Amino acid sequence: MNDRYVIGLDFGTNSARAIIANTRNGDEIATRVFDFPSGEKGVILDGRNPDLARQDPADYLEAVKVTVRGALSEAAKTPGFTPEAVIGIGVDTTGSTPLPVDAGGTPLAFQDRFAANPAAMAWLWKDHTGHAEAAEITALAGKMRPHYLAKCGGAYSSEWFWSKILHCKRTAPEVFDAAYTWVEHADWMTGVLTGTSRPETLKRCICAAGHKAMFNPNWGGYPDEAFLEALDPVLGRIRATLPDRAYTIADAAGGLTPEWAATLGLREGIPVAMGAFDAHLGAVGSGIQPGVLVKIIGTSCCDMMVAPLSRELPDIPGLCGIVPGSILPDGFGLEAGQSAVGDIFNWFVNYMRPENESHESLTEKALRLKPGESGLLALDWHNGNRTVLVDQRLTGSLAGMTLQTRPEEVYRALIEATAFGARVIMERFLEYGMTVERIVNCGGISGKNALLMQIYADVMGRPLEISKSAQTCALGAAMAGAVVAGKAAGGHASFTEAAGAMVHTDDKVYRPVEENRKTYDRLFRLYRKMHDSFGVRGYQEGLFEVMKELLAIRDEARA
Amino acid sequence: MNDRYVIGLDFGTNSARAIIANTRNGDEIATRVFDFPSGEKGVILDGRNPDLARQDPADYLEAVKVTVRGALSEAAKTPGFTPEAVIGIGVDTTGSTPLPVDAGGTPLAFQDRFAANPAAMAWLWKDHTGHAEAAEITALAGKMRPHYLAKCGGAYSSEWFWSKILHCKRTAPEVFDAAYTWVEHADWMTGVLTGTSRPETLKRCICAAGHKAMFNPNWGGYPDEAFLEALDPVLGRIRATLPDRAYTIADAAGGLTPEWAATLGLREGIPVAMGAFDAHLGAVGSGIQPGVLVKIIGTSCCDMMVAPLSRELPDIPGLCGIVPGSILPDGFGLEAGQSAVGDIFNWFVNYMRPENESHESLTEKALRLKPGESGLLALDWHNGNRTVLVDQRLTGSLAGMTLQTRPEEVYRALIEATAFGARVIMERFLEYGMTVERIVNCGGISGKNALLMQIYADVMGRPLEISKSAQTCALGAAMAGAVVAGKAAGGHASFTEAAGAMVHTDDKVYRPVEENRKTYDRLFRLYRKMHDSFGVRGYQEGLFEVMKELLAIRDEARA
Repeated sequence: MNDRYVIGLDFGTNSARAIIANTRNGDEIATRVFDFPSGEKGVILDGRNPDLARQDPADYLEAVKVTVRGALSEAAKTPGFTPEAVIGIGVDTTGSTPLPVDAGGTPLAFQDRFAANPAAMAWLWKDHTGHAEAAEITALAGKMRPHYLAKCGGAYSSEWFWSKILHCKRTAPEVFDAAYTWVEHADWMTGVLTGTSRPETLKRCICAAGHKAMFNPNWGGYPDEAFLEALDPVLGRIRATLPDRAYTIADAAGGLTPEWAATLGLREGIPVAMGAFDAHLGAVGSGIQPGVLVKIIGTSCCDMMVAPLSRELPDIPGLCGIVPGSILPDGFGLEAGQSAVGDIFNWFVNYMRPENESHESLTEKALRLKPGESGLLALDWHNGNRTVLVDQRLTGSLAGMTLQTRPEEVYRALIEATAFGARVIMERFLEYGMTVERIVNCGGISGKNALLMQIYADVMGRPLEISKSAQTCALGAAMAGAVVAGKAAGGHASFTEAAGAMVHTDDKVYRPVEENRKTYDRLFRLYRKMHDSFGVRGYQEGLFEVMKELLAIRDEARA
Repeated sequence: MNDRYVIGLDFGTNSARAIIANTRNGDEIATRVFDFPSGEKGVILDGRNPDLARQDPADYLEAVKVTVRGALSEAAKTPGFTPEAVIGIGVDTTGSTPLPVDAGGTPLAFQDRFAANPAAMAWLWKDHTGHAEAAEITALAGKMRPHYLAKCGGAYSSEWFWSKILHCKRTAPEVFDAAYTWVEHADWMTGVLTGTSRPETLKRCICAAGHKAMFNPNWGGYPDEAFLEALDPVLGRIRATLPDRAYTIADAAGGLTPEWAATLGLREGIPVAMGAFDAHLGAVGSGIQPGVLVKIIGTSCCDMMVAPLSRELPDIPGLCGIVPGSILPDGFGLEAGQSAVGDIFNWFVNYMRPENESHESLTEKALRLKPGESGLLALDWHNGNRTVLVDQRLTGSLAGMTLQTRPEEVYRALIEATAFGARVIMERFLEYGMTVERIVNCGGISGKNALLMQIYADVMGRPLEISKSAQTCALGAAMAGAVVAGKAAGGHASFTEAAGAMVHTDDKVYRPVEENRKTYDRLFRLYRKMHDSFGVRGYQEGLFEVMKELLAIRDEARA
């Protein structure tokens, strides 16, 4: 059989991309990126409300056209490639990024009356406007449905589905009233491509439903009406529009519509796999399996693990959920993460704007600093804390400044803070009986930021591998396209088979340096103290020693 | 009698200045500033050791020549002025800024072998290299001589005389061994001008001795030999070089030597008043008296009060001393302060370097922010905490950053932090029975930073007056010159009389705005929590609510 190809469509925070990958060896023969044109780098903000972050769904449709067409025309340079050799499509998006739609499945944002209304847009994952509603949901679930909470780590987040819907009802009732239902970006995307976007036909993915909307087969799907109506009677109406079943990425959403096939230049009817969140398909594209921790490090970070469905898993406090089939169809998917990583470094460079400095120049100077030398210690909560505190009402912090503190020292302290946050997450997994035999890293930062990767290895005390693909999420999506296309069509029979053929890691492995590890162990103890003091209600230990120890460590590092 | 004039010589951290003031009305008819040429803006630093800060005493001599001659030539434009009309000189300096001298009273820094040795220079007030020695002195005094400690606020500081000497012995023994004795900058200065700088003739001022060197008439002067030798046997040798008596600014150090008179173009023999620290003479130049809190706000801040000698004063924990005669000759002088104020804003602008921003542009933008709006809260400890924690091993801190935090928000938070620090000091005075009827502000910042002054008024909840002189420390020094010259010569019989004639406050008074005051009360409560949590050993309250409350206050401010 000639080579067959799959398309992976990856929708991020600022841009979308399509890749075309060879099913035989994973070679990515074409990539095309599209920067979302709306708002500030694709994100609609509100100067008065730093919690608000939306996207215009029109950008999503434009992105499909530009990226797929662009990738196809690039792929045409590969000998033997023709659009007919594309046998399947997979899709990943950010999430929870729900958007209100009408009874036909069309986004309210496409109606003239709502064209300028941010509440009618897609509520981007990092929108935290629903923090009060999240607290309300957590409190009510704690009383009425503690098992709902246990499966999502003990707290419902402001980043998630129901917090956003309820906040819309409270603050933009005209939008809430006009919405027939709410759809995750990932589901809307696959619905559009396969002509199944009408609510009565739309399939919803287990990834979004299970991790963000309290869907679980154990209790028959989405949260029950009585619970939702206790939150607000009108939520019963939304609940009634939701299906009883959710699908894994081994299922197809349907076939590509004739219209989209014509628009993109692809074969009509090729299968489109069910969507999933970028981090979940990034884990797939990194070859996740039991014992492997996959870290997708970009503007934020996701930490993904899987466990066999046959295993009795404890609930793990602080996780963003344990959901059967949410990553690989035959395993529990465990998701954890940090609400901001690259976003924090971008904030420092773009908002604090140290003169004549860039990521490159700061990195170069920060590389020359020894662990502990700056005397600084930061908390990486500029966008709240996702794991293990599950609290968006937390903020960044920096201790240890002197009159000589320089930008590169702050920059390095911010990187170190995200590394400490990463270690807290890994330790939580370990604490609850998961084993971490390998750590594979992917995402924009892991491949290009050697300073960060070495600090992470030193702080976590583990060797860190790097996924070879620069577009691991899109590769995972493409793999889903290959699996739903099936072996006979030139795809794969399973994700294990697909991973064997299509996933590779880099030769470069970051290994901990013993001396650095020791200093970071000391700093991590202080980080834990600040973490608990600022983040854990009723924590009863003063921080007296933090600044003192920082100075002692600094003086030793400089000696 | 024709108008008579006095010269005030003020030695700061980065520069020195001379003013010539009319004894009748305080008019400053001439001012001349000299920027110290050595090091970084007059301060010799060590890139590897952020605690080190020294000055070259050669800069001091050059400063006398340049500033006095320059001021005299400017004064010549005033009708009726002649150099013969100058009847006295007063001097203030930073402190504790001790320098090692040989048996002839000459600084070791002037010897070729020590010319490049920072240990042989003047150890500037903000040099904190002796922090371990300060802790040692505090611990030993707590055991052997608790009354020594009680009079300097409960802790001996790394900024002070004995910490520096002991640190020199430990780290630069060749300098320590070559030093016959150590002399405060203020005393060396008056010794030089009056030809009394040889150790056996040198008079030492009560201000430096009492606040920084544990001198107190109650226990017969400087700390006893047994105590010092318990610290280190070699300190007995230094103790033996110190006199039993110390002098107030109502005493003359002597008359101007013929050589200096010739060099400067002044009359030989005119009296030079005993020196004092800049803050103490700033308080005098601001018209200090019982019930008046004088704040000298510059790179750091000093908070000065006086109480009648007849009053029974309690020891006040955390103060930098309660010393009879240290400010006005007939009262107790109480000194408190913040180790950095303007230095923190300078750090932000000059070290963090937000692009295209200056003090002016940041101030302009920060003025448009409402109290609480940024969600930020800082600790003003970039140079340690002088009052009430007396702990140089504390560092700056900033909490509440989000991905939208901007430089002007940080800039305002830093100003607010210094205001909260100022309020902690005022509350400590009040707590121990002092009354604060008026607050008079002077120093570089008070006259020109309306944003800061309004924030201080709002945070402290008091009207704030401004000293009319832009050079209040130099004016206070000049007033001392007028008092030692005496009434018959055209000076004054007392400081009360001098203040009545020479001291004025500005028409502009900053008054608290009620709405701001309320928000700042809420923020101050949080500041106190962070202050105690980071700064008080064994403090047992978690900081959980800090970030939460900051966000709540922010959201209200933005609503």
